[in-house]
Amino acid sequence: MSGQLTLTALPGLPMVRPGDDLTGLVLDGLDRAGLRLAAGDVLVVTQKIVSKAEGRLVHLTDVSPSAPAVALAEASGKDPRLAELILRESRRVLRTRPGLVVVEHRLGFVCANAGIDHSNVRGEGRDAEGWVLLLPENPDRSAQTLRERIRRQTQVEVGVVIIDSHGRAWRLGTVGVAIGLAGIPGLDDLRGTPDLFGYRLQSTEVGVADEIAAAASLLMGQAAEGTPVVHLRGARFSRSDGKLSELLRPEDEDLFR
Amino acid sequence: MSGQLTLTALPGLPMVRPGDDLTGLVLDGLDRAGLRLAAGDVLVVTQKIVSKAEGRLVHLTDVSPSAPAVALAEASGKDPRLAELILRESRRVLRTRPGLVVVEHRLGFVCANAGIDHSNVRGEGRDAEGWVLLLPENPDRSAQTLRERIRRQTQVEVGVVIIDSHGRAWRLGTVGVAIGLAGIPGLDDLRGTPDLFGYRLQSTEVGVADEIAAAASLLMGQAAEGTPVVHLRGARFSRSDGKLSELLRPEDEDLFR
Repeated sequence: MSGQLTLTALPGLPMVRPGDDLTGLVLDGLDRAGLRLAAGDVLVVTQKIVSKAEGRLVHLTDVSPSAPAVALAEASGKDPRLAELILRESRRVLRTRPGLVVVEHRLGFVCANAGIDHSNVRGEGRDAEGWVLLLPENPDRSAQTLRERIRRQTQVEVGVVIIDSHGRAWRLGTVGVAIGLAGIPGLDDLRGTPDLFGYRLQSTEVGVADEIAAAASLLMGQAAEGTPVVHLRGARFSRSDGKLSELLRPEDEDLFR
Repeated sequence: MSGQLTLTALPGLPMVRPGDDLTGLVLDGLDRAGLRLAAGDVLVVTQKIVSKAEGRLVHLTDVSPSAPAVALAEASGKDPRLAELILRESRRVLRTRPGLVVVEHRLGFVCANAGIDHSNVRGEGRDAEGWVLLLPENPDRSAQTLRERIRRQTQVEVGVVIIDSHGRAWRLGTVGVAIGLAGIPGLDDLRGTPDLFGYRLQSTEVGVADEIAAAASLLMGQAAEGTPVVHLRGARFSRSDGKLSELLRPEDEDLFR
């Protein structure tokens, strides 16, 4: 890749509610930003608005904690009903400390609290503090759907990345990472690309979808700004249609799980 | 943060040699790109050219492997002289597998092969294959020096991030991460920022320097393109002068080391 990258936060997106048409919201936001989509553009969307549009809100009063959830709640200090949802959304719990539950999510990645979100969630008509938001059921499929609908309405092939903010094993601070993608590769494989002297690079797979997620996350902020969609122009990558699983290290190759 | 981010790869930078003046190379590159520095701009520089300018090239024929290096070489399949350098550059080895040595680097982060680089390195007058490149002695200081020299020559306060590509524990693909910084924060602390409904976010520290590193890495590629410096405009963060150690999880809080 070379040249220039431009990232634009789409202005004026309304609060998203269950059943909303994300495609329309994104296309309206592009209009407001004065952007006309071009082939190779990437739309980066925070999981929060995808989850909300897909109705992944749960009210804690509807959750009955199981015995394992009560035990997890005791070890972590979390609400037993939230612990129950964390367990339902996870393959297994990797670490538990007061205030922290690190899991292998059912989608395959390692994250805190199964990606369940308390903040910026308000449902309809019930105790506002009780609503939590689960991750999208299948973020790759959500990304594919958005890409396909945009293609139908605009005749332009874009990439779509759905992102969340994850902590890291050894470093502080969250960073944006891809949890679903369509129309772009997860990894860009530089193996075999000649280096400046014509040697061959032995193995360098770059996590381009995660780098795109981090770049967009810089613009999104987390709170009052409310910029859940970022348009990216200028990224060049090998043409392939990626998926989340490309970015996940198989457990038998993972030295730190 | 909101609005727009623009990243520009500086064109036409020459191969860097020990003793080269990076400040002059960067300012020339900005001129060629038609960019005039403004306060708040960030310059992202790959560690390779910083290390080369600082003369961190070592020729393997000058290295005598110790007994622990010979053992590490046997376990990893690496050249015993390279294993010796890996040990010298590390506090300790965390994991060893054929082809892979994961260490806690003397600079505090966890990375493969102590960040020692084989590719794109050619020294003067000796067997080209024998040269390897160590990371900068003190990347925070290198970043501070570049920032200070740019300030003196242009009267503009910029941020500087020195980056490398690191693998991750649970995810495939390398991503750009900060290994030295000046004039920007490592973490941007959103703790206490009201969310969209006026609740308080409990704890969200964003690794902004790492997100900037990942964004720039998208543009840099790794090989033939030769774009070791990226100019970033539009990032907004709390004004503070960060350092690498902000981004490093203390070992006693690390559940995965």
